[in-house]
Amino acid sequence: MTPHATGKQLLVVGTVAIDSVETPFGKAEDVLGGSATYFSVASSFFTKVRLVAVVGEDFPEQHFDLFKKHGVNVAGLVKARGKTFRWKGSYGYDLNVANTLETKLNVLVQFDPTLTEEEKLTPFVFLANIDPDLQLRVLNQLRQPAFVALDSMNLWIETKKEPLLKAMGMVDMVVLNEAEARELTGMSNLIKAAKEIRRLGASIVVIKQGEYGALGIFEDEVFSAPAYPLEDVFDPTGAGDSFAGGMMGYLARQGKITGDNLRQAMIVGSAVASYNVEAFSLGRLTQLSFNDIVNRYNEIKRITVFDDFAH
Amino acid sequence: MTPHATGKQLLVVGTVAIDSVETPFGKAEDVLGGSATYFSVASSFFTKVRLVAVVGEDFPEQHFDLFKKHGVNVAGLVKARGKTFRWKGSYGYDLNVANTLETKLNVLVQFDPTLTEEEKLTPFVFLANIDPDLQLRVLNQLRQPAFVALDSMNLWIETKKEPLLKAMGMVDMVVLNEAEARELTGMSNLIKAAKEIRRLGASIVVIKQGEYGALGIFEDEVFSAPAYPLEDVFDPTGAGDSFAGGMMGYLARQGKITGDNLRQAMIVGSAVASYNVEAFSLGRLTQLSFNDIVNRYNEIKRITVFDDFAH
Repeated sequence: MTPHATGKQLLVVGTVAIDSVETPFGKAEDVLGGSATYFSVASSFFTKVRLVAVVGEDFPEQHFDLFKKHGVNVAGLVKARGKTFRWKGSYGYDLNVANTLETKLNVLVQFDPTLTEEEKLTPFVFLANIDPDLQLRVLNQLRQPAFVALDSMNLWIETKKEPLLKAMGMVDMVVLNEAEARELTGMSNLIKAAKEIRRLGASIVVIKQGEYGALGIFEDEVFSAPAYPLEDVFDPTGAGDSFAGGMMGYLARQGKITGDNLRQAMIVGSAVASYNVEAFSLGRLTQLSFNDIVNRYNEIKRITVFDDFAH
Repeated sequence: MTPHATGKQLLVVGTVAIDSVETPFGKAEDVLGGSATYFSVASSFFTKVRLVAVVGEDFPEQHFDLFKKHGVNVAGLVKARGKTFRWKGSYGYDLNVANTLETKLNVLVQFDPTLTEEEKLTPFVFLANIDPDLQLRVLNQLRQPAFVALDSMNLWIETKKEPLLKAMGMVDMVVLNEAEARELTGMSNLIKAAKEIRRLGASIVVIKQGEYGALGIFEDEVFSAPAYPLEDVFDPTGAGDSFAGGMMGYLARQGKITGDNLRQAMIVGSAVASYNVEAFSLGRLTQLSFNDIVNRYNEIKRITVFDDFAH
């Protein structure tokens, strides 16, 4: 099987970071992280991925090799003068809530990507969590993409709501976690919040619910994707980005968007994310095979399937 | 269709209460409530139900009629000297968390049910949330029941852990919400917590997750049942008890316990609970038809179904 043989190409623009993370089960210092990192490796199992991001002079060369090993095109991963974006965070026993201890933007401050012709023409695009003004500037460079999705975070909802809403109106799919969906819309009910976000223009809304899975709201359909119930979760960092990576990678591979494809794609995302949290940083993702993902997909099917009502 | 025509009889022992509830969407004062109330009405759609509980002299006669209208056998609903058990609570926008404002045990203090011969011989039994010492005394009166399940709450985990653990070891199924499962076992991971509870003796553990659904852990199976995603939730009171009622009612109706039946039963519970939260007290449950439940069952199927991984 050659996973990359079929499917449309996928572009991701976001952050590549050096993380320090502490969870109740251990800690990892100065490890590879960032929204576009998790996304690109997760999606690389399904299609050809172009990564557009910035790192600093301190960024270890071995990480470039990691991306290349996964077939991720790093022509757009620019090394700028200064230090790499750093994030330091911790989790308590409620692994759904990340506590940010320190954020050093460093080279991210000046990041303003100019896409190459090839990048502009990439049919599938994911704008990972990054300043919405940057997301808008990327959106304005794209040439009739087939499908564009966007993620964000509470910081941008609180400080850059206007460009964020504008960007959300220009994409096909918005991916948020439930706290963000509630904060953005002021609605506690997630179905209502999703409908409100759809009114901005995106026809598909995916609401991530951490250990509970995700809800997909598209056209007149609602889809409830469970999380795979793990016994050992070590580090939830990157779960949302690897979920999005698995989902978008699968959609790009299928090459077209249908309700059925979206459902399958969300389950793929859930499968990839469930592996991601089994180790710190990309420790588990980088050990993964295509078949591992298919196996977990099938396991998720087994834990959700039930017969018709027996009269 | 005559829903009651088939199936084994079901006995429930628990509380019947007068509730006062406030949610962000309104309030209801002095309305019918209690664990055994929600359970018995919810399960009455599927099989013959015997209710064993106590009320006071102030208990309105019309509520007896409500039970009778649903075919619930109230021979075991004793009217004692004193006042009915009262609970006053409120919910904020996080409808998963109930704040207890006041609890008046009243007649519950002296409640010590002596089962009739017919009650002792009922094949399916549910011990709704009530003092674990009472649950034990009921368990000791049962004559080789086919299937017994038990619910509890944080209060008993904190004040009566020993009898609670003993009772859990004598039943076939333990039903708890996720906070209770974690508190009982000291384990944050729900799959680990469920396995720990199974070690006490119950072969089936069902962990309720409020708006996220429920997890069933039995033998070597895990089943993830979603909640039906509603746009309007008015009052979550009784959601857990009506979930358990739908689940146990369906199991009693089927008459035997298999992995497939348990999966279907959890979806039935989810369907009934989703109706229950659409109105205060039993406002919605009492308006429900058997077909309404089947319809929502089918809707839950539509929101969870997905195709095989497409290679």
